[in-house]
Amino acid sequence: MKIDVVKNVLDANDRIAEENKALFEKSGTWVINLMSSPGAGKTTLVEKTIEALKDKYSIAVIEGDIEDTCDAERVARHGVPVVQINTGGACHIDGNMVREALPNFDLQGIDLLIVENVGNLVCPAEFRIGENIKAMILSTPEGADKPAKYPLMFQESAVMIINKTDLIPYVDFDMEQAKRSALGCNRDLVIFEVSCKTSEGLTGWFQWLEDQIESYKKQDP
Amino acid sequence: MKIDVVKNVLDANDRIAEENKALFEKSGTWVINLMSSPGAGKTTLVEKTIEALKDKYSIAVIEGDIEDTCDAERVARHGVPVVQINTGGACHIDGNMVREALPNFDLQGIDLLIVENVGNLVCPAEFRIGENIKAMILSTPEGADKPAKYPLMFQESAVMIINKTDLIPYVDFDMEQAKRSALGCNRDLVIFEVSCKTSEGLTGWFQWLEDQIESYKKQDP
Repeated sequence: MKIDVVKNVLDANDRIAEENKALFEKSGTWVINLMSSPGAGKTTLVEKTIEALKDKYSIAVIEGDIEDTCDAERVARHGVPVVQINTGGACHIDGNMVREALPNFDLQGIDLLIVENVGNLVCPAEFRIGENIKAMILSTPEGADKPAKYPLMFQESAVMIINKTDLIPYVDFDMEQAKRSALGCNRDLVIFEVSCKTSEGLTGWFQWLEDQIESYKKQDP
Repeated sequence: MKIDVVKNVLDANDRIAEENKALFEKSGTWVINLMSSPGAGKTTLVEKTIEALKDKYSIAVIEGDIEDTCDAERVARHGVPVVQINTGGACHIDGNMVREALPNFDLQGIDLLIVENVGNLVCPAEFRIGENIKAMILSTPEGADKPAKYPLMFQESAVMIINKTDLIPYVDFDMEQAKRSALGCNRDLVIFEVSCKTSEGLTGWFQWLEDQIESYKKQDP
């Protein structure tokens, strides 16, 4: 009996992620992999982003959850195509889960695909899915010590969105420490300070996203 | 060449957890496995619990983090023995990590061992470490939808501590929904509503913990 051993599950995942990426490039779809702790505000950011950009771009969303479809239902109310991935216990989305979801979309017509990962500050950062960028949310009640404790998430992300700035008067959050520590993990990190509740600071994020999509479209042959 | 295959990593972990549990029973040490999302308030709860109970019981702590020792340093200031487990990337503590930490303690003299797991609402719930109970913290800024989205954590825990009640006026947290949904996962869940910041509600938790330790001591031969 011959036993094949996949030496490195991350290598296997990377191959699928590359295939996904090739599909996205073909269709001119810019893809963001959005990660955070549970309850940091991913779904609310997705909803606000759809509302801000849906008249200009065609947007689709993949919602990743262990089980449950409540986030997908929230997003679907904004009139964009949504596919729910239920990981069935797995604590992250991987390349293959995204591949399985793609036949549910007409990729050719989609400018921006937002993949909302499972709420987890650890494992999602380890798995590529074919995205253009990873972005992560740090919410102020979580505390400024998170980059030191979960560095990979900050190293892998191109963007850190510091959410729930409206709670700063009520929580012990040291904004300067959070930014300094995150930049210590990744000096190229683009940082936005926002409140998804009050919408404060979100226009900077929307503009940055628009710039990425526009510059991607220009590269597109 | 013979290749041994461990069929189920969780089975292998359970065997080590049982061995740990036998050691704890021999020394009369009551063990709590404390879990939550990042930043929900585990370390602050550990600190407050030590201050409340250290005159009555001998307490030790194992701190689990991917890297960094800042939580262990916070806890050590309270004058109890602390061992830091750095998981080196792993998103949870398992039975073997705890076994490796135990020679650092004189278990015979310890009434209460608190194991603070890695901040993660998913995987820690899957791995037994030899604990008497699992307890989890849900903080109000995370939202009331967490039991529906991360049910295993709530199923596996004997206790849910709803923390950051001081933030309720500023966040959209439906206390009744959170409790109903958590009890839907696990109808035996013991629930405390607390603010580790203001100390409101903590006496109920301390009393419950004391009751557990006392009744465990009575069982102890």
